[in-house]
Amino acid sequence: MYKSMNNTDDFKQYWFYGILPVTDNEEVFMNHTLDQLKAYLGKMRQYEHVLSLLYWDMNTMAPEKGMETRVGAINYFSTEQFRLSTSDELGEMLRELSEPEQFDTLDAAMQLTVKRYLRDYERFKRIPEDFYTSYTEAKTRSEKAWEKAKRSSDFSEFAPHLEKVISMTKEYVHYMEPDEDPYDVLLGLYEEGMDSATIDRVFDELKEELPPLLKKIEESPKPDLRALEGSYDINAQKKVQDMLLRYIGFDADAGATAESEHPFTLDLCIGDVRVTNHYKEDDPLSAMFSAIHEGGHAIFGQSIDPAYENTAAEKVELMGLHESQSRFYENILGRRRSFWTPIYDRLGELLPQFRRIPLDTFCRAINDVHPSMIRTEADEVTYCLHIILRYEMEKAIFRENVPVDQLPRLWNDWMEELLGIRPENDGEGILQDMHWSDGSFGYFPSYLLGSMYDGMFLEALEDEMGSVDTILEEGRIGEITEWLNKKIHRYGSLYTSAEVLQRVCGRELTARPLLDYFNRKYSELYGFKR
Amino acid sequence: MYKSMNNTDDFKQYWFYGILPVTDNEEVFMNHTLDQLKAYLGKMRQYEHVLSLLYWDMNTMAPEKGMETRVGAINYFSTEQFRLSTSDELGEMLRELSEPEQFDTLDAAMQLTVKRYLRDYERFKRIPEDFYTSYTEAKTRSEKAWEKAKRSSDFSEFAPHLEKVISMTKEYVHYMEPDEDPYDVLLGLYEEGMDSATIDRVFDELKEELPPLLKKIEESPKPDLRALEGSYDINAQKKVQDMLLRYIGFDADAGATAESEHPFTLDLCIGDVRVTNHYKEDDPLSAMFSAIHEGGHAIFGQSIDPAYENTAAEKVELMGLHESQSRFYENILGRRRSFWTPIYDRLGELLPQFRRIPLDTFCRAINDVHPSMIRTEADEVTYCLHIILRYEMEKAIFRENVPVDQLPRLWNDWMEELLGIRPENDGEGILQDMHWSDGSFGYFPSYLLGSMYDGMFLEALEDEMGSVDTILEEGRIGEITEWLNKKIHRYGSLYTSAEVLQRVCGRELTARPLLDYFNRKYSELYGFKR
Repeated sequence: MYKSMNNTDDFKQYWFYGILPVTDNEEVFMNHTLDQLKAYLGKMRQYEHVLSLLYWDMNTMAPEKGMETRVGAINYFSTEQFRLSTSDELGEMLRELSEPEQFDTLDAAMQLTVKRYLRDYERFKRIPEDFYTSYTEAKTRSEKAWEKAKRSSDFSEFAPHLEKVISMTKEYVHYMEPDEDPYDVLLGLYEEGMDSATIDRVFDELKEELPPLLKKIEESPKPDLRALEGSYDINAQKKVQDMLLRYIGFDADAGATAESEHPFTLDLCIGDVRVTNHYKEDDPLSAMFSAIHEGGHAIFGQSIDPAYENTAAEKVELMGLHESQSRFYENILGRRRSFWTPIYDRLGELLPQFRRIPLDTFCRAINDVHPSMIRTEADEVTYCLHIILRYEMEKAIFRENVPVDQLPRLWNDWMEELLGIRPENDGEGILQDMHWSDGSFGYFPSYLLGSMYDGMFLEALEDEMGSVDTILEEGRIGEITEWLNKKIHRYGSLYTSAEVLQRVCGRELTARPLLDYFNRKYSELYGFKR
Repeated sequence: MYKSMNNTDDFKQYWFYGILPVTDNEEVFMNHTLDQLKAYLGKMRQYEHVLSLLYWDMNTMAPEKGMETRVGAINYFSTEQFRLSTSDELGEMLRELSEPEQFDTLDAAMQLTVKRYLRDYERFKRIPEDFYTSYTEAKTRSEKAWEKAKRSSDFSEFAPHLEKVISMTKEYVHYMEPDEDPYDVLLGLYEEGMDSATIDRVFDELKEELPPLLKKIEESPKPDLRALEGSYDINAQKKVQDMLLRYIGFDADAGATAESEHPFTLDLCIGDVRVTNHYKEDDPLSAMFSAIHEGGHAIFGQSIDPAYENTAAEKVELMGLHESQSRFYENILGRRRSFWTPIYDRLGELLPQFRRIPLDTFCRAINDVHPSMIRTEADEVTYCLHIILRYEMEKAIFRENVPVDQLPRLWNDWMEELLGIRPENDGEGILQDMHWSDGSFGYFPSYLLGSMYDGMFLEALEDEMGSVDTILEEGRIGEITEWLNKKIHRYGSLYTSAEVLQRVCGRELTARPLLDYFNRKYSELYGFKR
């Protein structure tokens, strides 16, 4: 009738951990530096694996009272990982393998690994230890000050910390790459090879065309969202998530799902890529589109060629390219009528409220475009302008050295210029994002780069495969996922985004396809002339 | 309307793991060996923490395709942990601190730590590395052979492996403690200080009195279990688990719950003790009593004095004592009418089927005693006899050197003698448990020791606090948990079970109180004369 003993059986298994097979890695002598490096990378991988797991657990499961021990563990293994990635032993292997006669014999993934790790190793070695410690401390204090300032909408509390983090970030970047433009170095941290000359060129196109498009949308009749009001069972929402993930191609045998405060994706390894979600009783769309978004990230991670395991190509390194995949599923596919045609009845079975909402009404609701203050709540069109604003701010900070106390007004002015609305306080203005508080300047543009890549990928996909709407309506979404797997995912971070664009689209970055997509979609949906 | 960006924010946080505050442990020079040891134990703790977490995740979350990487991580960190616990550095510190002039200055928890770690260190050092490796391999092969043999009920497949594991376990124990009785050494691995002379004495009492009691129960009318038949919603069962855990005193801010194939409890640290459960649609009692059982383990872990953190006193070392706590909640409290009186209406609200079942019927159902073949499915009375059988078998193996091919018949004969039933095949006989396949001889008795401790604890509790039924009926179960916290839990593994019995009950181990409890309870419940 009851099983009360299994527990102790499991205690026992656990107990015996201490005496699992012992293989002494250090005694396996390697003949070649390449083999040595591979063994070393295998060791580094273990630390990354447990750090990922500690992070996952902390955000999905760990209780309040265990947090201190948990933070201790994260600190310990981060330190170990940091030591491994800056050890002289690693440096010597990397230098030896980067000599042309050795380098030329490596395969592409190992060449990339040697290049990236050596660059990072050398960058770290140029940073004085004292400076590094003070910088880390300054960022930690700044993050805390930002949290407090955001809550009270009081920029003056945050200003001295921001000022310090800006000046130290400049110093930090200068140590890393003394001969390069600091802001370009920052951009490259998140999107390899990206620079502000390229971004200026494409953002200018968007700055010119998006405001008039937004004006046309605003002058059109608004979608009626009242049909969606109501209370949606959380367990049913979880079943909708499972249905959506399966539909787009997430492999449940190579991943897992859980709840967390904010949705995120985490790659433990190619065979274990996990997504979280956050459910709101009064808003079923939030969790549905988060599921599709995170599912897109996860499909990328699950589809990397296993041959790249344990090389730099396996790592999530290109934020723009990664974001392009989550947004391709979420926006380019997920906000289309044809995406829902094959599964709308199923959605109604799981969440019966949707049976009362015609598919057309639903499609208007998931494409409700209007200016708003908060980036993370913005639709796919105005989102672009939120990013452009932040990019302009970062250039003002790093190129024009605009004093910190002038930044809030600059933010509000640009907000008014780009989106036609002005924040009433700094909480809904410059204080809304955490990125700058911890020195992550240069990160924001990658979100929008992802959307532009998507416009280009959509064009290439339709050139080769025909209308996406036809494919989706016929329930052949699997063919789109296969195309993305084959063209993009399988290579992981092997190619820079610029290289991927050349390989997949045959040309360099342009905003044109994204703009064409917006114009076509919203003129049809809102019924105005392009 | 939707939040699509949080993901990348979280990617970013993750990304920055590599550059968390770096504290160089090795540069913190300690003046005293004690401080050095404490720092070293802190380091060991990190490995235990991640190994626990890897184990937890593997059993509750990790997907099939990530298993290989996961096993690699477990192997890596087990090896590191093993190295730390057998390093010369540790050995020197322990030896120095065990010198009387230093040892006498240590507090009780550190004295215990030095004693235990030094003993384990010296034991491990006496085991030749080659032997250790072959032993581990033999156990791994034996476990696999046992799984297969159990499925096909074919002992002959398992026999050669069992023979090898037995002879190697004898050798293993002889290396560890060359001058002690091998089976007593094995018993001590799971219950410090326990020996077979003690166990013989108390098991003999049980062997004499339990079979006649069982006969009386069998001659009484059986409880009618049909009222419980039906299908029980899994989500509602989870809510019942939460209700039960809260009721008995599990601190949800210092723990977590999840699903796994078999229920188990895992201590990550005092502030993070987790339990799992397994739900069956057609059997709500299974998950309910597992929740109470695992909750009992967890309350023990959560209530250890934080001053013992990171010493041997914090570790789950005494299997019998630990099992006594899970069984105290599950059997001594949980199978009593008075336990359910304050919460039976609430149970009916969560699982409406129980509204139709009178509390008396329910209490008969949860105390259905009858002989059965499988230990893990046995009731609290026949369970004792299952353990006695295994203990006799282990003595036959280690003391009488009974040949392996005679063991199945011996099992069946004893089964018939003790429980009056005879297995039809070895799958429901000698092959049912995994313990011997991996060399865990000496583990079984700790289950029953736990029950005997419980009889003694119950007696002491009622002497001090009055009738448990009154306390429970009045909804004062918290006072019982407080009593257990104060008398037992807070000390963790600081005292051996024998010492705990002396401190709490003022006498040495005896089966009398357990027998009295059985006789009183079942004569009342089944209505026969004692």
